[in-house]
Amino acid sequence: MPVIPINTPSATYNVTIAPNLLPTLHPRLRKLNPGRPFRPFIITSPNIWALWSKPFLASFKEPPTVLFHPAGERHKRMASVESLAQQLSTAGADRDALLLAFGGGVIGDITGFLAAIYMRGIRYVQIPTTLLAQVDSSIGGKTGVNLAAGKNLIGSFHHPQAVFADTDLLRTLPPAELRAGLQESIKAGVIYDARLFRYMEQNAEAILSASAPAKRNADTAALAKVVAASVRVKAEVVSQDEKESGLRMILNFGHTIGHAIEAATSYKQLLHGEAVAWGSIAALSLAVARNTIVEKDANRIVNLILRYGPLPTFKATAEELVALTARDKKNRSGIRSFVLPTAIGKVEIVHDVTEPELLAATQSMLTLMRTGT
Amino acid sequence: MPVIPINTPSATYNVTIAPNLLPTLHPRLRKLNPGRPFRPFIITSPNIWALWSKPFLASFKEPPTVLFHPAGERHKRMASVESLAQQLSTAGADRDALLLAFGGGVIGDITGFLAAIYMRGIRYVQIPTTLLAQVDSSIGGKTGVNLAAGKNLIGSFHHPQAVFADTDLLRTLPPAELRAGLQESIKAGVIYDARLFRYMEQNAEAILSASAPAKRNADTAALAKVVAASVRVKAEVVSQDEKESGLRMILNFGHTIGHAIEAATSYKQLLHGEAVAWGSIAALSLAVARNTIVEKDANRIVNLILRYGPLPTFKATAEELVALTARDKKNRSGIRSFVLPTAIGKVEIVHDVTEPELLAATQSMLTLMRTGT
Ligand SMILES: NC(=O)c1ccc[n+]([C@@H]2O[C@H](COP(=O)([O-])OP(=O)(O)OC[C@H]3O[C@@H](n4cnc5c(N)ncnc54)[C@H](O)[C@@H]3O)[C@@H](O)[C@H]2O)c1
Ligand SMILES: NC(=O)c1ccc[n+]([C@@H]2O[C@H](COP(=O)([O-])OP(=O)(O)OC[C@H]3O[C@@H](n4cnc5c(N)ncnc54)[C@H](O)[C@@H]3O)[C@@H](O)[C@H]2O)c1
Ligand SMILES: [Zn+2]
Ligand SMILES: [Zn+2]
Repeated sequence: MPVIPINTPSATYNVTIAPNLLPTLHPRLRKLNPGRPFRPFIITSPNIWALWSKPFLASFKEPPTVLFHPAGERHKRMASVESLAQQLSTAGADRDALLLAFGGGVIGDITGFLAAIYMRGIRYVQIPTTLLAQVDSSIGGKTGVNLAAGKNLIGSFHHPQAVFADTDLLRTLPPAELRAGLQESIKAGVIYDARLFRYMEQNAEAILSASAPAKRNADTAALAKVVAASVRVKAEVVSQDEKESGLRMILNFGHTIGHAIEAATSYKQLLHGEAVAWGSIAALSLAVARNTIVEKDANRIVNLILRYGPLPTFKATAEELVALTARDKKNRSGIRSFVLPTAIGKVEIVHDVTEPELLAATQSMLTLMRTGT
Repeated sequence: MPVIPINTPSATYNVTIAPNLLPTLHPRLRKLNPGRPFRPFIITSPNIWALWSKPFLASFKEPPTVLFHPAGERHKRMASVESLAQQLSTAGADRDALLLAFGGGVIGDITGFLAAIYMRGIRYVQIPTTLLAQVDSSIGGKTGVNLAAGKNLIGSFHHPQAVFADTDLLRTLPPAELRAGLQESIKAGVIYDARLFRYMEQNAEAILSASAPAKRNADTAALAKVVAASVRVKAEVVSQDEKESGLRMILNFGHTIGHAIEAATSYKQLLHGEAVAWGSIAALSLAVARNTIVEKDANRIVNLILRYGPLPTFKATAEELVALTARDKKNRSGIRSFVLPTAIGKVEIVHDVTEPELLAATQSMLTLMRTGT
């Protein structure tokens, strides 16, 4: 089973990827904390718990306290963190508490943030249940919540002790969630791993078949390969640049416009991966206009993005979206940085994108969305 | 002017203590950030700003944005942090923002926490305006807010870039706040600095005269000496043990019962330093009962604590207070640790305090409070 190390200045830990991991959790937690007491608290959503509590609890002699957080991006807020902290305290959680984030990126981000700030920092473990969480959000120590003013504007760097990605979990994932998560795998291929990109081109059907309401016993082997390769990309990038001073920025490919689309649609209409997919298409248009990438490669990428669709459409003008990029966290004193592919598996970062360029690229993406060309 | 260095694994910075520092702020901020842009945001309370905005702004060419946070412990909550973050974002604050915490410990703790989590961490500077903030809360990187379940249960370690303690600010401090803050200086003497302790014994009148409604031009020289000596204690302890794995715990002398008193009185009746004073008296009774300190030294300490009073009385039973200590953040899996003086300027940490011992010590403190003996 793939065990992928994350090595950063502030923490070292492993991402373990395998089917049937859940029933082995408790001994793994013990191994992570040799000679150190820990009291596990599960943070999850009612829907996930209803589906997976049995295998999750199989290895626990005493069932841990379970704290529920409602599903949905709109609950990724300070008030939820405060309420969970209050519940932890009422349940007697002290510095020996060990939080288990059991859910998608929302649960992972909020639990990581809660662990970062409860009593100024306690331990936590990520047990991601969505594809996006397995390949992206559970790794790298970024945690946080949204403000009314924008996504993830509040947060901490706080690494988990380990990430346990059980690929069986993906079988119950709504298919749209799977497809949206695969957009982050495409991103991983585009920015860093041409082999992963090709694998996704050649095995789309097998990969996409893992989650389908009718096939709860589907073969997840192809999907597991994609998960492992995507994790490897994130692991290498994060290990080289923990705090996003340079290389880590490449993970934001497609995210500047992607975030603007999410904001323009009030985070309600599109899944994150879907917004990133549109954002990637806009970034590619910018890259083609600047001649950083040849049109043929750009088209291959756009085609792969669409192959893992369908991508929902949305209503917004290019002007609106570009205006919304001004608030991006990556900006410093007004300079807008962009990650642009130069070939499949390679990118560069540019800092001199002008407003008219950005408007044109966004417009071209919107035209593709509306007319299919 | 005393410039006291803090040297921890995660940060190095100075505490500068002097009168008339405020009008020199802006060039100091520039010096802290050579070649790096910064946009200052002031976080303060309306009452402090009304008193001190003029000298504060004297060195700024463009007046920075001021965000107000109401005075009072009850506003040290997540909702306030969220509202300030929202205001920062609306005002266009990005990662170049530099927060200036201008107020007492409440403003300092909340601003430090806001800086820790806004965009996952931005810079901030402490400009403490109370004695407690100058000698204690502005130093060491502990930041945070309260939960309904307890004080400071949420927070981060996040050090300021610098601490500028202008002792002139203490002239407008309500006298009770000054006396309460001096209890932390007594604590510093008790745990680490016998000379400071003696100085406070011998110069009580001069020290206490700094803040008095009638003497807005009082001589603050004696008080400034106490501030500098107290800061030195905190600086040395924090530099040796940033994350409270060992030595730093000694700063909690008097705080276990002190926090219980604050909780029992809903954080409304006593100032923090006053509660710590009562807590110190209880801890001393425990130390005497255990023979860790001779009665003569214990009495000298109790007398000095009372000399910097009067300490307000409160209503609570020993049982209630001891029950409330169970939630102390210093506890791990139920073990209660205590800091006990062994002589003036020296303490030890014990981990085996039993409930009956603690009840007796608390009872003896309550008896002193009620009967004066
Ligand atoms: N921290 C990071 O580095 C990072 C990186 C990328 C994204 N994120 C964050 O991740 C979040 C998105 O995460 P997400 O896409 O996982 O969304 P999500 O957590 O909202 O999960 C999507 C939906 O799927 C359900 N679900 C989860 N697992 C399931 C399963 N196994 N079976 C059936 N249903 C399941 C959830 O209840 C939810 O309704 C965003 O808030 C984003 O900001 C964080
Ligand atoms: N972070 C730490 O390491 C640490 C250590 C100790 C205490 N604390 C925290 O500090 C807080 C207590 O701080 P505090 O005692 O400074 O209380 P505070 O911040 O509430 O200030 C006390 C009062 O004095 C007013 N004030 C402040 N400066 C003034 C001035 N110069 N002139 C006139 N009025 C002024 C304030 O508006 C307030 O009403 C608590 O929340 C406590 O938890 C933190
Ligand atoms: Zn993403
Ligand atoms: Zn204190």
